[in-house]
Amino acid sequence: MSDAAEGADASDADRVYHVDGDLVPAAEATVSVEDRGFAYGDAAFETMRAYGGDLFGWEAHADRLAGTCETLGLDHGIADAELKRRVDETLAANEFADAYVKLSVTRGVQPGTLDPAPEVDPTVVVIAKPLPRGGAGSDPVHDGPAAVQTTKTRKVPDRAVPAAAKTHNYLNGILARLELRVTGADEALMLDSDGHVAEGATSNIFFADGAALRTPSLDGPVLPGITRETVIDIAESEGIPVEEGTYAPDAVRDADEVFLTNSTWEVRPVATVDGIAVDGDGEAVAGPLTTLISRLFDRRIEEAHYDGERL
Amino acid sequence: MSDAAEGADASDADRVYHVDGDLVPAAEATVSVEDRGFAYGDAAFETMRAYGGDLFGWEAHADRLAGTCETLGLDHGIADAELKRRVDETLAANEFADAYVKLSVTRGVQPGTLDPAPEVDPTVVVIAKPLPRGGAGSDPVHDGPAAVQTTKTRKVPDRAVPAAAKTHNYLNGILARLELRVTGADEALMLDSDGHVAEGATSNIFFADGAALRTPSLDGPVLPGITRETVIDIAESEGIPVEEGTYAPDAVRDADEVFLTNSTWEVRPVATVDGIAVDGDGEAVAGPLTTLISRLFDRRIEEAHYDGERL
Repeated sequence: MSDAAEGADASDADRVYHVDGDLVPAAEATVSVEDRGFAYGDAAFETMRAYGGDLFGWEAHADRLAGTCETLGLDHGIADAELKRRVDETLAANEFADAYVKLSVTRGVQPGTLDPAPEVDPTVVVIAKPLPRGGAGSDPVHDGPAAVQTTKTRKVPDRAVPAAAKTHNYLNGILARLELRVTGADEALMLDSDGHVAEGATSNIFFADGAALRTPSLDGPVLPGITRETVIDIAESEGIPVEEGTYAPDAVRDADEVFLTNSTWEVRPVATVDGIAVDGDGEAVAGPLTTLISRLFDRRIEEAHYDGERL
Repeated sequence: MSDAAEGADASDADRVYHVDGDLVPAAEATVSVEDRGFAYGDAAFETMRAYGGDLFGWEAHADRLAGTCETLGLDHGIADAELKRRVDETLAANEFADAYVKLSVTRGVQPGTLDPAPEVDPTVVVIAKPLPRGGAGSDPVHDGPAAVQTTKTRKVPDRAVPAAAKTHNYLNGILARLELRVTGADEALMLDSDGHVAEGATSNIFFADGAALRTPSLDGPVLPGITRETVIDIAESEGIPVEEGTYAPDAVRDADEVFLTNSTWEVRPVATVDGIAVDGDGEAVAGPLTTLISRLFDRRIEEAHYDGERL
């Protein structure tokens, strides 16, 4: 979820969304108040970027969505290809080539109780908003280098709700973000129950120590981000060592470079952690590794989605 | 949330709900797919019972709702009296004297991001379903004595999302209930991060040891249930000692009596815990303390809501 994406052009009266199999005007895109997605946040979702009309990492997103649904015991019965068709139809109807997309699958309306019934008539919702072109030389879809702040709100442990499940239960991240109102920071640095670094409210975190990148391991309550995975892949293909481990907050505070990743921001440099400048020696905010990874990410996008037009 | 309440009479085509200030047919009661209540479960709610046309414990429910909204930083600006007016209007429009009521307040649609904006245009939803008459000699609104089972799913810790906040983030309880599919148990016995007894997915738990009642303290991740509070008050006014403490699951498994409370079930006896009969000596399921508390609860309802008609 990105500031820029969500806020972009929200007044477009011609916008259409996809609800329960149909394209509908955004203003009429609704779900029942008895939909379990509304009543309980009982829904799986993915946020994605479309570049030049193509979804980035669709297979990875579809796999993660399936994993979330499995965790939720939500057997929606809709093929990945059909989900993709609805996303593509939404993009086409809005004439969006470059866009933010949110795909949600809820357990729908069910009679009875909090207990989910095995037979599901799911509600599928696709929301899309336009974004600037990505790829080489693109403008970042965020408000610049982030101020990150450790929050008192801790991550929900995996044995309460697994972090690998991307669901509409987002109050944990919202409570963390509420803490930032006082300081004006952009993103929360959320710790697990033992006080180790986990992730941001809507992003994964990386930091650099010398020539190596470090990021919290998926053994902790950490979303397996698609951009996180892509960054690891890019780094390794460049011979940059990546360590996935367990880290104290001081490891981030003392790092040479820090950056955040999510599907909308892609790679977002971090300027300060708990009010302390990451760039202790007064140089540019995005350090050399962050800049390199970001440029290589843009290059991948350019090659895969824009035929390398700007390379 | 009760099995009976949610399932009751759901096909009533004339049912009306209250959405955003208006009565609407239940089939047309919807919220925007961009409502934060749907997108993030970013909403506070209360479930209540109406007896003879009156809400039980309205002030306590209104106070708890206000507490939830404060935790969420959700300043909805609607007076308690106006919220009650909408509930009463919903009951009157459906001609319900005895009913289950769910009142939800969401942060509404906001531009931008996961970060909640301070200015809120809330969405208020009231759902109601008919129930049988309560009070003295009433039929219980549950499926009989409960089979309770300890789940692997642990309660979300307070420092992730405070349990005192009653919100639309209900996947923690849903995941616990999903575990019961295999055994057919009715309610989860959820433990906190340290393995101590917390509560059910939708109920508080009490157990009796000799002449005293015990229930997990609100220091743990335990919802401050209105029925829980009422039961404590009833017990104390009868001279029955109530201890609020920290208990291992074995304390419940070894108890003489166990019962659950919530607004719909009121007092629900527990027949088995982890497959072991609570009533080890072969007597009736609801032990003497459970029976007494239940009868005194019914008496309070009868006096307060039915003018003591059946007393």
